[in-house]
Amino acid sequence: MGILSELSSPADLKALDPGRLEELATEIRELLVSKVAVTGGHLGPNLGVVELTIALHRVFESPDEPIIFDTSHQSYVHKMLTGRADQFDTLRQKGGLSGYTDRGESEHDWTESSHASASLSYADGLAKGLQLAGRPERNVVAVVGDGALTGGLCWEALNNIAGSDRNVVVVVNDNGRSYSPTIGGFAANLAGIRMQHGYDEIMQEGKKRLKQMGWVGERTFEALAAFKEGVKSQLLPTEMFSDLGMKYVGPVNGHDLKVLDNALHYARDYDGPLLVHVVTEKGHGFAPAVNNVADQMHSTGAMDPITGEPTSASEPGWTSKFSDDLVELAGRRRDIVAITAAMAGPTGLQAFADTYPRRFFDVGIAEAHAVTSAAGLALTGLHPVVALYSTFLNRGFDQLLMDVGLLKLPVTLVLDRAGITGSDGASHNGVWDLSVASVVPGIRIAAPRDGAQLTELFHEAVDIDDGPTVVRFPKGNLPEEMTALTRTADGVDILRYSDAVEGSPSVLLIAVGPLTATAVEAAEALEADVTVLDPRWCFPVADSILALAADHDLVVVAEDGILRGGIGSAVSEALNAAGIDTPLRQLAFPSYFPRHCSRNELLAEVGLDVRGMTESLRGWIDELSS
Amino acid sequence: MGILSELSSPADLKALDPGRLEELATEIRELLVSKVAVTGGHLGPNLGVVELTIALHRVFESPDEPIIFDTSHQSYVHKMLTGRADQFDTLRQKGGLSGYTDRGESEHDWTESSHASASLSYADGLAKGLQLAGRPERNVVAVVGDGALTGGLCWEALNNIAGSDRNVVVVVNDNGRSYSPTIGGFAANLAGIRMQHGYDEIMQEGKKRLKQMGWVGERTFEALAAFKEGVKSQLLPTEMFSDLGMKYVGPVNGHDLKVLDNALHYARDYDGPLLVHVVTEKGHGFAPAVNNVADQMHSTGAMDPITGEPTSASEPGWTSKFSDDLVELAGRRRDIVAITAAMAGPTGLQAFADTYPRRFFDVGIAEAHAVTSAAGLALTGLHPVVALYSTFLNRGFDQLLMDVGLLKLPVTLVLDRAGITGSDGASHNGVWDLSVASVVPGIRIAAPRDGAQLTELFHEAVDIDDGPTVVRFPKGNLPEEMTALTRTADGVDILRYSDAVEGSPSVLLIAVGPLTATAVEAAEALEADVTVLDPRWCFPVADSILALAADHDLVVVAEDGILRGGIGSAVSEALNAAGIDTPLRQLAFPSYFPRHCSRNELLAEVGLDVRGMTESLRGWIDELSS
Repeated sequence: MGILSELSSPADLKALDPGRLEELATEIRELLVSKVAVTGGHLGPNLGVVELTIALHRVFESPDEPIIFDTSHQSYVHKMLTGRADQFDTLRQKGGLSGYTDRGESEHDWTESSHASASLSYADGLAKGLQLAGRPERNVVAVVGDGALTGGLCWEALNNIAGSDRNVVVVVNDNGRSYSPTIGGFAANLAGIRMQHGYDEIMQEGKKRLKQMGWVGERTFEALAAFKEGVKSQLLPTEMFSDLGMKYVGPVNGHDLKVLDNALHYARDYDGPLLVHVVTEKGHGFAPAVNNVADQMHSTGAMDPITGEPTSASEPGWTSKFSDDLVELAGRRRDIVAITAAMAGPTGLQAFADTYPRRFFDVGIAEAHAVTSAAGLALTGLHPVVALYSTFLNRGFDQLLMDVGLLKLPVTLVLDRAGITGSDGASHNGVWDLSVASVVPGIRIAAPRDGAQLTELFHEAVDIDDGPTVVRFPKGNLPEEMTALTRTADGVDILRYSDAVEGSPSVLLIAVGPLTATAVEAAEALEADVTVLDPRWCFPVADSILALAADHDLVVVAEDGILRGGIGSAVSEALNAAGIDTPLRQLAFPSYFPRHCSRNELLAEVGLDVRGMTESLRGWIDELSS
Repeated sequence: MGILSELSSPADLKALDPGRLEELATEIRELLVSKVAVTGGHLGPNLGVVELTIALHRVFESPDEPIIFDTSHQSYVHKMLTGRADQFDTLRQKGGLSGYTDRGESEHDWTESSHASASLSYADGLAKGLQLAGRPERNVVAVVGDGALTGGLCWEALNNIAGSDRNVVVVVNDNGRSYSPTIGGFAANLAGIRMQHGYDEIMQEGKKRLKQMGWVGERTFEALAAFKEGVKSQLLPTEMFSDLGMKYVGPVNGHDLKVLDNALHYARDYDGPLLVHVVTEKGHGFAPAVNNVADQMHSTGAMDPITGEPTSASEPGWTSKFSDDLVELAGRRRDIVAITAAMAGPTGLQAFADTYPRRFFDVGIAEAHAVTSAAGLALTGLHPVVALYSTFLNRGFDQLLMDVGLLKLPVTLVLDRAGITGSDGASHNGVWDLSVASVVPGIRIAAPRDGAQLTELFHEAVDIDDGPTVVRFPKGNLPEEMTALTRTADGVDILRYSDAVEGSPSVLLIAVGPLTATAVEAAEALEADVTVLDPRWCFPVADSILALAADHDLVVVAEDGILRGGIGSAVSEALNAAGIDTPLRQLAFPSYFPRHCSRNELLAEVGLDVRGMTESLRGWIDELSS
């Protein structure tokens, strides 16, 4: 590290000779690419905000003036400028730097969740608090992408911010994208503004000129001059979100430090809430990212730092299996439509979108609308498939309950990244879905254990027409397929029977989804009478499970979700209601927010690996035997 | 009924001589006032949409062209015009007309939930479905209040609607209010438009002229003429939500049938999405409603149909007890701030708002923002109290989990109307909060049994500074206070001990909140060994409960919330984890959406009254004894 090694705080950055800032930006980009190439991470978004983040920390007084990064996957540069540049070898690793802002790392970090669109609400609350504390002159800054602005929470916040006299600076980081291009009327409006000011052409120009690794000094001189001319008129506030009366300056070139400095100083000194519209390019300065049409390296695994090519071949995973199944089934089922909340690629819907574009709907980062608009589609006789990351279902919970469940509509939710995900940190783990979805009356929840079961259960889900269904599966590669010994009349797979062991109590081990393989392995490791079953449809609880439970000495439920209100708990409720008092134990995710680490590390941490499961089972069997 | 008796469908309405429509409007208002005066209901909103609803059904072809009423508490007139005028004696009564649209009642009703801001998402989905079905020429109409438009779900939907070519007609019913005046930048913008067109003055004029019961023909002639002149220019589309490019016509006078007819015909024939801005007066034509500054009779109980005065004196209830407690405590605790989502009156915050206006924040119908902005306030060292109806917490669940829970912030949620509410129908019951809130790591949930406990537990909640807390209580009057026989060291109240009964198993009956009184009564009715306790903090489960459970033959948990994942289930989890295998039974709300009826009727229906509880207990005791 060159200049970065001199910077331990924003104060050091403020003291830096402005003439060295371009060099600093270059150094940051080199560090981003070289480090993320090893650890993986959100490369494209961070390359896009290098100059913006430098300018923010030169103008505002963090942490007295809080800077809130929406979603905060674009906070790497912020971390580098607040004393953490030397820790990027540990990014997203167990015990290392988080991929999001983290209050445990720095006083400059205020939030920790990776769910989009929350920054403006935080900023509104912080500004209200500062006003009450007698510090109304302090600014609160929220950095929010144009994609996140399609989320309703931002609208709720802007309505409050715009109607106030508080010093909230909303910095819109407009790169025309979230994961994929931003959709809807709002995106069209922003594109219009960019075009009017020539920004789209400039980005095009940048793309053409940019050579591989050519991030040093690659800026069009003519364009730069034009921007400087334009600065003054851009800083006369007009309105954006004019229905709210939100004052606006911009658009400003998010890769021009001088222009940014002017605009942010203006915003800092402006009295009242102000929105600064900054146009950036995702992946800026790194050709493989800029030229990646799919997602501009929104998030990447380990890769070659020159070519951007992945360094390990990806195996076919759950997502691509679902992707294939959907396209295949949709060929026969004309009533199937599919909905994504701005994640067609990551949720596997892109192939469907390419094959059946009229039946595909990207609604923006708007899970609530995804669910309720699915209800509307279902009311016309269609069968919508809503594909979400499990953790984001929580954003549409009320809609699932009230707009789908109450009307008993046939909507199938396909939840990817269900269960423990690990490296993306606490808020990306999909451990809440089983507890939350199962409170919806009439819902049915399936958790396939392998690819074959995914196909079967997805087909069964789409055949159900009297209420919502959920099919959930984890992040990662498909496990080896496991054939059932037998299937009960109500669809439960018995994976392992055991003859009675002399003097040993009999255990019914119910394993949800991908934990079935772990459960079978654990059962094999024990010299004990353990029956292992896969409920396939894990909610509601099948009658055959109740009958089996009555015939065993102990019921154990293992699931890749939280213990509180999970499937173990649902089995317990069903047994209690049926008057079956076989003791029950739960193997599930405990009630805490885990630190980031790999999925396997986290499974081991909470005892959901083979070793942990074996130990727990042995302990319970010993207790029962004594 | 006069003209209404001739109308069994919208076709009859279309055939009606336009010269008789004013008389019809008068008749509808008289019917609304006379019927709601007996049953109670949403009077003000329905008085405001009489002409609008007539015009909608004359112009559009319901049900082929769906008309979606947002929240749908303003659908009474729609019900009268679609063959249900003669059923208003049964409004909100068991077996009678629902207070919201209801698919079981009519093919003209499309939705059933009473949660605001969902109509545009439904409309977007319906329009997408009609387009795929080859019927893109059909309109889908959504009638949405200006208050509901402060909810983020509307923004998500508008972004999709505005960016499409589909025939969605968004009718904004702008009366400047939700329960209370609409807040924020958006409201200011609407007010500006109304003022520019003279509507605010006209509404003022109407108010002055309106005599008690003077709804017949009370319209300012001059104003009427001005409106007719203005129609043409109002129907040249400009833009509202200009960031979305949403085409807009208006504002139009929502009490002028001719003007409405013109505007809606224009909207019907317009190709593509269009927003029609209709200005109405809540309570229009009924002086006691118009003159009610607090809420313009948004929702009323039984009342005198002339004066609007309540016919039964209201007793001090849970809400007013909380209201007093908050004001009292806030006098000593300067760090307490309070937040409402557009319901300062109904949640008891008005007194706090009047006493401490700077510490009070109405954020609009925006529960998600209420929760996340509370997190922001908490980050500045304040202790926010967010007062919501229990059922609306589901709208802010992700925010509670990710923005408050993950950061372990001291935010206290006060949930009114928790548990069974009854007459407002399925979606108003606050039966989900215990299951949903308890999945948040580190949260603590209190359910007071009476007013004294409300005060105690609210004080305890606000003293907790390392994570979120919930205090939840039901709708209705305060029950008689019940003194505990003893309190355990960890805060559990024992309300009843029983000496052992020869040959009878011992029962530990854990009763949550207001069900404690029912539990004690049921225990008294049985000749059995029943200990009754009130956990006070019902989540997490207190250690003393585990110890007591180990000492009894049966544990029963009774709660005023859903069985799935409820407190009974949490007790079961805690017992399982501790290796205590005392049989457990749950008395809770089953997994279904109930029809509207009174709270007591619904408690009895699900066996949560004294009789039901006694019978269940007796059955379980008999089983254990045999």
